[in-house]
Amino acid sequence: MARRENNANFSRLLRKIKSKPLERELGFGKNITLDNRLMNPDGSFNVIRESLSPWDNIYYHLISMSWPRFLWIIFCFFLLLNVLFSILYLVIGVDQFNGVTPGTWSQNFMQAFFFSSQTLTTVGYGHISPNGLITSILASVESFCGLLAFALMTGLSYGRFSRPSARIKFSEQMLVTPYQGGYGLMFRMANTSRSELIETEVQILMAINQREENGELTRKFYPLTLEISKISFFSLSWTVVHALNDQSPIQHFTAQDLADSNAEIMVLVKGIDEASQQQVHTRRSFVASDIVWNARFSPIVDHAPGGVPKLITKKIGKHDLLETQAG
Amino acid sequence: MARRENNANFSRLLRKIKSKPLERELGFGKNITLDNRLMNPDGSFNVIRESLSPWDNIYYHLISMSWPRFLWIIFCFFLLLNVLFSILYLVIGVDQFNGVTPGTWSQNFMQAFFFSSQTLTTVGYGHISPNGLITSILASVESFCGLLAFALMTGLSYGRFSRPSARIKFSEQMLVTPYQGGYGLMFRMANTSRSELIETEVQILMAINQREENGELTRKFYPLTLEISKISFFSLSWTVVHALNDQSPIQHFTAQDLADSNAEIMVLVKGIDEASQQQVHTRRSFVASDIVWNARFSPIVDHAPGGVPKLITKKIGKHDLLETQAG
Amino acid sequence: MARRENNANFSRLLRKIKSKPLERELGFGKNITLDNRLMNPDGSFNVIRESLSPWDNIYYHLISMSWPRFLWIIFCFFLLLNVLFSILYLVIGVDQFNGVTPGTWSQNFMQAFFFSSQTLTTVGYGHISPNGLITSILASVESFCGLLAFALMTGLSYGRFSRPSARIKFSEQMLVTPYQGGYGLMFRMANTSRSELIETEVQILMAINQREENGELTRKFYPLTLEISKISFFSLSWTVVHALNDQSPIQHFTAQDLADSNAEIMVLVKGIDEASQQQVHTRRSFVASDIVWNARFSPIVDHAPGGVPKLITKKIGKHDLLETQAG
Amino acid sequence: MARRENNANFSRLLRKIKSKPLERELGFGKNITLDNRLMNPDGSFNVIRESLSPWDNIYYHLISMSWPRFLWIIFCFFLLLNVLFSILYLVIGVDQFNGVTPGTWSQNFMQAFFFSSQTLTTVGYGHISPNGLITSILASVESFCGLLAFALMTGLSYGRFSRPSARIKFSEQMLVTPYQGGYGLMFRMANTSRSELIETEVQILMAINQREENGELTRKFYPLTLEISKISFFSLSWTVVHALNDQSPIQHFTAQDLADSNAEIMVLVKGIDEASQQQVHTRRSFVASDIVWNARFSPIVDHAPGGVPKLITKKIGKHDLLETQAG
Repeated sequence: MARRENNANFSRLLRKIKSKPLERELGFGKNITLDNRLMNPDGSFNVIRESLSPWDNIYYHLISMSWPRFLWIIFCFFLLLNVLFSILYLVIGVDQFNGVTPGTWSQNFMQAFFFSSQTLTTVGYGHISPNGLITSILASVESFCGLLAFALMTGLSYGRFSRPSARIKFSEQMLVTPYQGGYGLMFRMANTSRSELIETEVQILMAINQREENGELTRKFYPLTLEISKISFFSLSWTVVHALNDQSPIQHFTAQDLADSNAEIMVLVKGIDEASQQQVHTRRSFVASDIVWNARFSPIVDHAPGGVPKLITKKIGKHDLLETQAG
Repeated sequence: MARRENNANFSRLLRKIKSKPLERELGFGKNITLDNRLMNPDGSFNVIRESLSPWDNIYYHLISMSWPRFLWIIFCFFLLLNVLFSILYLVIGVDQFNGVTPGTWSQNFMQAFFFSSQTLTTVGYGHISPNGLITSILASVESFCGLLAFALMTGLSYGRFSRPSARIKFSEQMLVTPYQGGYGLMFRMANTSRSELIETEVQILMAINQREENGELTRKFYPLTLEISKISFFSLSWTVVHALNDQSPIQHFTAQDLADSNAEIMVLVKGIDEASQQQVHTRRSFVASDIVWNARFSPIVDHAPGGVPKLITKKIGKHDLLETQAG
Repeated sequence: MARRENNANFSRLLRKIKSKPLERELGFGKNITLDNRLMNPDGSFNVIRESLSPWDNIYYHLISMSWPRFLWIIFCFFLLLNVLFSILYLVIGVDQFNGVTPGTWSQNFMQAFFFSSQTLTTVGYGHISPNGLITSILASVESFCGLLAFALMTGLSYGRFSRPSARIKFSEQMLVTPYQGGYGLMFRMANTSRSELIETEVQILMAINQREENGELTRKFYPLTLEISKISFFSLSWTVVHALNDQSPIQHFTAQDLADSNAEIMVLVKGIDEASQQQVHTRRSFVASDIVWNARFSPIVDHAPGGVPKLITKKIGKHDLLETQAG
Repeated sequence: MARRENNANFSRLLRKIKSKPLERELGFGKNITLDNRLMNPDGSFNVIRESLSPWDNIYYHLISMSWPRFLWIIFCFFLLLNVLFSILYLVIGVDQFNGVTPGTWSQNFMQAFFFSSQTLTTVGYGHISPNGLITSILASVESFCGLLAFALMTGLSYGRFSRPSARIKFSEQMLVTPYQGGYGLMFRMANTSRSELIETEVQILMAINQREENGELTRKFYPLTLEISKISFFSLSWTVVHALNDQSPIQHFTAQDLADSNAEIMVLVKGIDEASQQQVHTRRSFVASDIVWNARFSPIVDHAPGGVPKLITKKIGKHDLLETQAG
């Protein structure tokens, strides 16, 4: 019942949207689902791209995974290579080495393994050394593989280090709260990086389900204009505000309207990271259920001794709403 | 006969082109051939640049070749260096080494080779070691060369890894198909990379042979305007459409007209690759014979469980036309 | 007394400011203190950002510290790793090594330490070599750690080398001096890098405490327009001038007015560094006490033999004021 | 006599310049000499910047020198380090090593040198190994120095490889030749790189000595407008033309006028190098004596079999003028 009324109300509201939806698509083509969110909360798109081959994007994976996982993969790769060559040496025979005392299978394997490891890392103590022709060739190949693997590892490490990124932390919620006589839709973000972020720009795009004149329900995109959309420096925190005034396409929307139209508010931030002097981009998506009405953000900037403003980074995120007032 | 009529028809059509050709050239100067395509299908230009020296662009070559070829070249280079030093050691005499038992020529060579390899990779087991003055000096030089070669290899590997590129796959054909009451010329492209491509922009430039007022046949360039030429995100696929309306310079062209005027449609795509946060460019060229009339593209986006859109990358390219209808 | 009059004078002056303050904030939110400077003289912001974890910005730290400190940290890190493995070897027992003569504790430690160091750097002479199972495994792990640490060190070194920066030296003072019939506020900067800085642009932003109509004292931002704000090349030195004319918000300000309003003048420079072909940014902040009245800059460009202009870099900074004249 | 007349003529011409000189300076301040060229032919500025310290711009030097010189410096640096440690080992005494047979001074030095070299490159055969405490410590330090030096060398190599540059070759001369009914001032440039240069833009700036109304001779800058100043692709060659028409500030200048006014024409090129996907800049300067009247450029694009245009790179430069006609 309430739903039906809401829908009627919702259609009435949509008819009142004066601003026109964006012509430009989001690269989803006509395959946008009406029910799913388009963007995950972390800014990645909610799509699957079947890759042409697993090797295609291996650099991207190795660059973007976490450090512990990266180090673990590197370690496993070296171990695997090590074991592989050990087995080859074992098959050829440990009698093809100087300094190896043939023993049980496991003793032989360990000696082959240690020789292999000393070759792969080019440490080459020499208390074990290749004697036969094939072991000598294999050892040459292994030390070359070691150098190559190490060259790639160095390249990847630098790629990971230098990957420019905007370390921006967003509030978990959007608020609708009194603002300049009317209401404003706002979220907050903080720069948690040591490096300054300059010429920072924010764009907000809203996706809602809207009934076309022919009755078909489609997903439309509206830009939400901001009071301030660009700042010279993003030093501490920034509360970005969309005024729910006459120009806003969602001026008279209620919480229920936003939920019914499956509203999704996508935030696009770009700026220049001073450490790398490169432009960086980051995104965040909020859905109807992330919007809190009549709350306000708790302060996250303290004053250190001497009056210097101090950002308390850990307060951004889950714990940054001060109180919820009556509507 | 038909050709002559077509030509007449073609000239008549060209006279009707209201839009003016581009003043800006394509960097070919006046050396454009009327018969050859200007751009290869992969986006490289159909020209030959005689380099000043083979060393000039060696970095470009090593960076842009395929990985197997790169690894093969690196391997051959190390092998060559290895053999070169082996021969020098052999010439000086294997008696200048500790741990080498002089034997037949081939035995001596193998021992020199293994010593050389252990020096070049800095593994240095030590069961063979230089004894004489000249072998010691040579070994010092070789280990330095090994370090240097390895430094260059590391640099090249990273250069290859980090080279920003737009992994866009284009449809093999362009279509002319009913669009908004009239006809549209369209092609499709898909993002096959794991990384998002943002602020993606497309430009289309058409080259046709056109008879000037003085009767001379020259190659002219026209921009083809697009309904949507920029999207915020290029997440899955994008069908780029040039409406064959009044503003189009080729509104009334037939397939034969396009073939006769040796039409070439060059597609220029640029966007920001999120993995490297850098702008990337890619190109594709279509000629008259790549244009299919009255066909349409088969769907390439499926829905994974949960309604998440899923790009089936392998469908882009050769197999993406659904059916050919009667004209 | 003088202060009170000055304040009255100051309020009167502020009422006369015709230009409007900037809407865009500086990313400080409402947490701007009225007493502290916003920007340190070196261009960093006078804020504290509590990081989420000490690891978060480790790359930024290692990249931006001085070279001696960086090398020291690298050295200490290798030493620490070395000692750590030495202790492990010592605990397992030096009898697990070939070539070690057990002796006093310190003798054993030194031998373990040297073995460890030879393993970590992969030098591996082999006069000491692991004998037992656990020492062999440990040595394998240590040589892998050595490779990894070295890969990271290489990445960091390149990151430090290639970090684009504008090596601009600013004058220590700003001057207010006769300029084009009226007065001008000016500072000077010189390019001290070997690399050219092209398309260099300067922006000046002034922050002053200003009493709002409701009597509240707030910090406002005004852009100060420049006669020339962009030059094609920044080859030697550039004296940047803000004319104190009708358009200036601080036309009639006295030294006392600037001090009373806690004026801070922030200079933002950007340009393209030719060595890296990348855009670089740099900043400088001047406060009221940095402004010298009726002085002028001493020449810093000399002429080398042949008439070639020569920048005397060391004159920029503390010693670049020629004389102070009467007002 | 002729000079005086020319000067009179020259002043008359300058009075006729309708376009206004550029306000923006070139970063030379008021230190521009009237007699010297501002830019060297290779695009570097004709100035001297006294660096704050020799270390300041060491990366720039190492990155921009030629490969042979770079490799030579690297080699010398390793040799120096090697010799330095050799001397230290020698001072401590060769009896502190296993495997060294004490002999004459030079024999001892060579053995110390080879041990040092084996340590620095981490090859570590082990037939010589440190025995005493101090030699062991020194050897540890040396192998660490080797690693560090190698890390820096790797970083520098990559920095050299990846340094984006526009490999554009310019004609040695500018021509004044009949063009579109009047005359045109033109030069030619060719892309000699394997990589495409896209969105290439050219700007021309002329510097001439001009007598101000108060009689003072000063250096003024005028932009010279181009028929085509931007091309989508710079594939082969491009003849850049400034029409000497009514809009040109030098329409009626003679060769003598250009020489008398010490005219210098600075060409600024920028474009996006596709290999690195980065914007690159390059410059060239022409002075009055580089301008040839009534000549034309010889063709530099040939046609390979199949009609593919082929750039003959070596023809650009000194040998690209076809003939000199009578004026």
